[in-house]
Amino acid sequence: MTATFPTAPDTQALEHGHALAPRFDAAGLIAAIATHADTGEVLMFAWMNAEALAATLATGEAHYFSRSRNELWHKGATSGQIQQVVEARIDCDQDAVWLKVRPQGDGGACHTGARSCFYRAIEDGKLVHRP
Amino acid sequence: MTATFPTAPDTQALEHGHALAPRFDAAGLIAAIATHADTGEVLMFAWMNAEALAATLATGEAHYFSRSRNELWHKGATSGQIQQVVEARIDCDQDAVWLKVRPQGDGGACHTGARSCFYRAIEDGKLVHRP
Repeated sequence: MTATFPTAPDTQALEHGHALAPRFDAAGLIAAIATHADTGEVLMFAWMNAEALAATLATGEAHYFSRSRNELWHKGATSGQIQQVVEARIDCDQDAVWLKVRPQGDGGACHTGARSCFYRAIEDGKLVHRP
Repeated sequence: MTATFPTAPDTQALEHGHALAPRFDAAGLIAAIATHADTGEVLMFAWMNAEALAATLATGEAHYFSRSRNELWHKGATSGQIQQVVEARIDCDQDAVWLKVRPQGDGGACHTGARSCFYRAIEDGKLVHRP
């Protein structure tokens, strides 16, 4: 699948317009933040290319781009942790996407088995587990 | 101010250890997500270099790295929208930081004047304002 998005003609259109005109970086990626739609917890941070963003919007299930595997990544396709998208937002300069999701399967989002990837707080320079 | 952080010796230490060993990218940056400590709303997405992360942890106020100005960015220093950090977390592979913050000043976080940078939802391929 190929996906193309327009480029905003100016800052006004980029920041205040109604056209989705994501600003992919030099590698063709945009930042993506997934939070739990019910708890607000940040679950994970990942990347999307145009194909992943288009697939997410078309299917209502989060798709990312795996930089390590260099391929489209349908989150949960193997783990069962499908992320149903309740709402997708984009930020002012359209270089970051925020997905509010409901994780399926065991409800987790992290490959370590944790509910959220952000299971450690930074305290006095050290990491403290906060499941 | 210079700041250095260790590199995790292996994946086990990176993902489950107690040492803060952020994985800065080729440009020396790490992703940073700020949410409102009280409402859970995602306020903004930005970048930190080692100096910004160290300054954030040392002062309890969010510091980022401005890629457009190529300099340390003490959020709110000019706008008054200082972000008091309630909790800082890092993700499994230590390449993204999540700050729970309380914005000061007018309570906003976005240069457009919006409370959050994510003031537009994506619906049927178009952007809809959701202040």
